[in-house]
Amino acid sequence: MFELHERLVAATAPLGDAPLCRILLLNDRRFPWLLLVPKRDGIEEIVDLAKVDRIQLVEEIAQASGVLRALYRPYRLNVADIGNKAAQLHIHIVARHQDDPLWPAVVWSQPYERYDEAGLAARVAELQEGLTAIPGFTLPG
Amino acid sequence: MFELHERLVAATAPLGDAPLCRILLLNDRRFPWLLLVPKRDGIEEIVDLAKVDRIQLVEEIAQASGVLRALYRPYRLNVADIGNKAAQLHIHIVARHQDDPLWPAVVWSQPYERYDEAGLAARVAELQEGLTAIPGFTLPG
Repeated sequence: MFELHERLVAATAPLGDAPLCRILLLNDRRFPWLLLVPKRDGIEEIVDLAKVDRIQLVEEIAQASGVLRALYRPYRLNVADIGNKAAQLHIHIVARHQDDPLWPAVVWSQPYERYDEAGLAARVAELQEGLTAIPGFTLPG
Repeated sequence: MFELHERLVAATAPLGDAPLCRILLLNDRRFPWLLLVPKRDGIEEIVDLAKVDRIQLVEEIAQASGVLRALYRPYRLNVADIGNKAAQLHIHIVARHQDDPLWPAVVWSQPYERYDEAGLAARVAELQEGLTAIPGFTLPG
């Protein structure tokens, strides 16, 4: 049974599911910031995924990257598997702009700045609409 | 013609080539830290690689991760495509330990601490020996 790590639950809002990954919005209003979490129990690192899952993961990373590009026209996408604090494999995909508050530094190991309620709802809605471009994407059940 | 970005040349020592990626040692003695650079001209983001190259990239990430695990027994591997300063796709793979100098913060957006000459040569030699486990790996020509 796949269950999302409690630290990931606390930091995110659900967007939906691709075939392999649960897709979450990280709750930091400064950046369009997705997490992709492979729905596989007990996996902490990319190297521990089955080969077929690794291939699907990189495709879903590319698909989600395409959605962020289409919506936000980032200067750069930052893609990372870190997991130093949450022991469940999750891939960050962050749309970065040269005028964003932390550019050119990385966004990790920094406090989050949370959305207000309306801002979060609007960001979730625009991302969910964009993510329907991913084959097999479904909204949260 | 593939040519390594000058910022990557300046920060690294060459280890060798896998079928898709040039593999470099990042010159920071605090962490076993690899860069994988797909030998494709003009590619800045994972999403811009051909699908066949993306699949090979994630396999080479897994293979290089396995080498770091075998050599250094890390608590966690940090894997990232950032590229905010060097406009050539390169994947960081960093072996992290809970007693390393920056744990649990990320290693990026920090000054490097360089190896001395003997330390660099020793690290390069042990990694090159480990990397021969990757199918098709060749030492620098």
